[in-house]
Amino acid sequence: MPVHLITGGAGFVGVNLARRLLARKEDVIAFDDLSLGHKEFLKPFGNVPGFEFHEIDCSAGGAFLERARAIHAQKTITDVWHLAANSDIPAGVKDPRIDLARTFLTTFETLAVAESLRIPRLHFASSSAIYGDVPDRAIAEDLGPLEPISNYGAMKLASEAQIRAAIEAGLERADIFRFPNVVGTPATHGVIIDLIRKCRKTPNGFDVLGDGTQQKAYLHVEDLVDAMLFIAEHATGRYNVFNIGPDDDGITVKNIAETVRDRVSPEAEIRYGQGNKGWTGDVPRFRYDTHKLTALGWTARMGSTAAIVRAVAEIADQEAAR
Amino acid sequence: MPVHLITGGAGFVGVNLARRLLARKEDVIAFDDLSLGHKEFLKPFGNVPGFEFHEIDCSAGGAFLERARAIHAQKTITDVWHLAANSDIPAGVKDPRIDLARTFLTTFETLAVAESLRIPRLHFASSSAIYGDVPDRAIAEDLGPLEPISNYGAMKLASEAQIRAAIEAGLERADIFRFPNVVGTPATHGVIIDLIRKCRKTPNGFDVLGDGTQQKAYLHVEDLVDAMLFIAEHATGRYNVFNIGPDDDGITVKNIAETVRDRVSPEAEIRYGQGNKGWTGDVPRFRYDTHKLTALGWTARMGSTAAIVRAVAEIADQEAAR
Repeated sequence: MPVHLITGGAGFVGVNLARRLLARKEDVIAFDDLSLGHKEFLKPFGNVPGFEFHEIDCSAGGAFLERARAIHAQKTITDVWHLAANSDIPAGVKDPRIDLARTFLTTFETLAVAESLRIPRLHFASSSAIYGDVPDRAIAEDLGPLEPISNYGAMKLASEAQIRAAIEAGLERADIFRFPNVVGTPATHGVIIDLIRKCRKTPNGFDVLGDGTQQKAYLHVEDLVDAMLFIAEHATGRYNVFNIGPDDDGITVKNIAETVRDRVSPEAEIRYGQGNKGWTGDVPRFRYDTHKLTALGWTARMGSTAAIVRAVAEIADQEAAR
Repeated sequence: MPVHLITGGAGFVGVNLARRLLARKEDVIAFDDLSLGHKEFLKPFGNVPGFEFHEIDCSAGGAFLERARAIHAQKTITDVWHLAANSDIPAGVKDPRIDLARTFLTTFETLAVAESLRIPRLHFASSSAIYGDVPDRAIAEDLGPLEPISNYGAMKLASEAQIRAAIEAGLERADIFRFPNVVGTPATHGVIIDLIRKCRKTPNGFDVLGDGTQQKAYLHVEDLVDAMLFIAEHATGRYNVFNIGPDDDGITVKNIAETVRDRVSPEAEIRYGQGNKGWTGDVPRFRYDTHKLTALGWTARMGSTAAIVRAVAEIADQEAAR
């Protein structure tokens, strides 16, 4: 039976992945430093057999390796799902050391653990941010040049590069998942929760960063996890790189803001800002080519609009319950 | 007048760059931790006005920033030439922490210094190693995907990515020089010095790693520095990426070994190994597309063969004088 170690296991994607793996009766070990993840996200797994959580900073070698080694001696870890990262892109733009530690050094140390314990398979949450601002072309996996415009994107690209070199040095297999924007619960950050909180705070009207024309593809986390498991099962190479996303060109910030307004406060006025970038490092427009994944046999159940509508409802419920 | 800070200023390329800049009567500040660079390489500059050397580890923030700040207060640094890196690729394959610190963290901290002191221009010694093993296509600057197979290549790609993000965050200009294999003196490592030392040690015969068919382009360091200065002067973008190399497909290890033999010990027997990779992370064959640089107006004076013949003579003299 596979035994899964998830770094960032108390985060948004980690919790959803853990739920699916536990449903398959496979063991899950979640590591998280709780800087962005939350222990309460793990409450549903409290009594599930085969689940364990450890508060560990995966950006530093010592304790991470020792704890993994101790667990590995009890039950052999077969798969590492490396999801730990700084998911707060603007914070990393302000202070590059955040992405250095959380987005890159977590990868570096995860590779060191995998090598040291001879864990055969690494599955990595990379990002469309590695491509940078590519307005005119469909973005396929073999696109060049790669010019990330945020420290987050830079450190995800650095992570991919280090993983690729690790394959050469003996890592048995790596899957690289290039995530699009992902939505769903438990939500901790991102455009939907920001807009919902603003709208709840001032139900008469709220501000939107940028002019609302930024358009991106969004995937629901349920689809995302499904794609990750599908690739892990069906891809056959030693180094498998896949864009994951819906088969559409996405929806605009304006559409998202209106969906939020309709759900939270139908009378609210939406006030737009200037320019088509929400923040430094934001990518205004984006055509994500997911044909490689389609050819492998997977397609998203929800397109960008369906994903946003469902996530807005889920996150509005989450926020109302706080 | 420009004031130049060179990281890795006591290394092979740094010394050659410093010589050229000093000949133009421009100030040069050389930083080096002397882990791979050598203080004796700097002897010729001992009494040259405008030159200063500081023993500094550029992979750690504190002392590096403070020393640069103190100098910057005296004479405003206008250009950083970031050359510090682990140039010993096999060492980095054995221990990824070497390339993490010397090849990547030096870049990270150099960017932090440039940002903190508002130094406008960064010139970076990247590498063809970022492309990985691309046997069938000419390698131009916009090639994708990028799959470095050594930790050195991975950390050079990581460096480029971080520099690209820094441009978005406010760095005024960056030149990315993707070096080919570079030869010349003062030589500290690489295929020529290895072969010369072997041949001097056992003049009757010496071993070559791999079967001798590995073919690469080589540039003489004199041409390399010339290209770097040319790009710095003539490229007009904020982020300028250039392959630097001769306009040929390179020469084989067999040709190099024979050139060494002819120069050092004409009677020596050359014994070849197995396979077309000299070591893990070595790239056996390579077609480097330098049209972008040609279009900018620069071409190498020496092709691969001329560069090797001259470098073998120079390095043989260097070794004989030791």
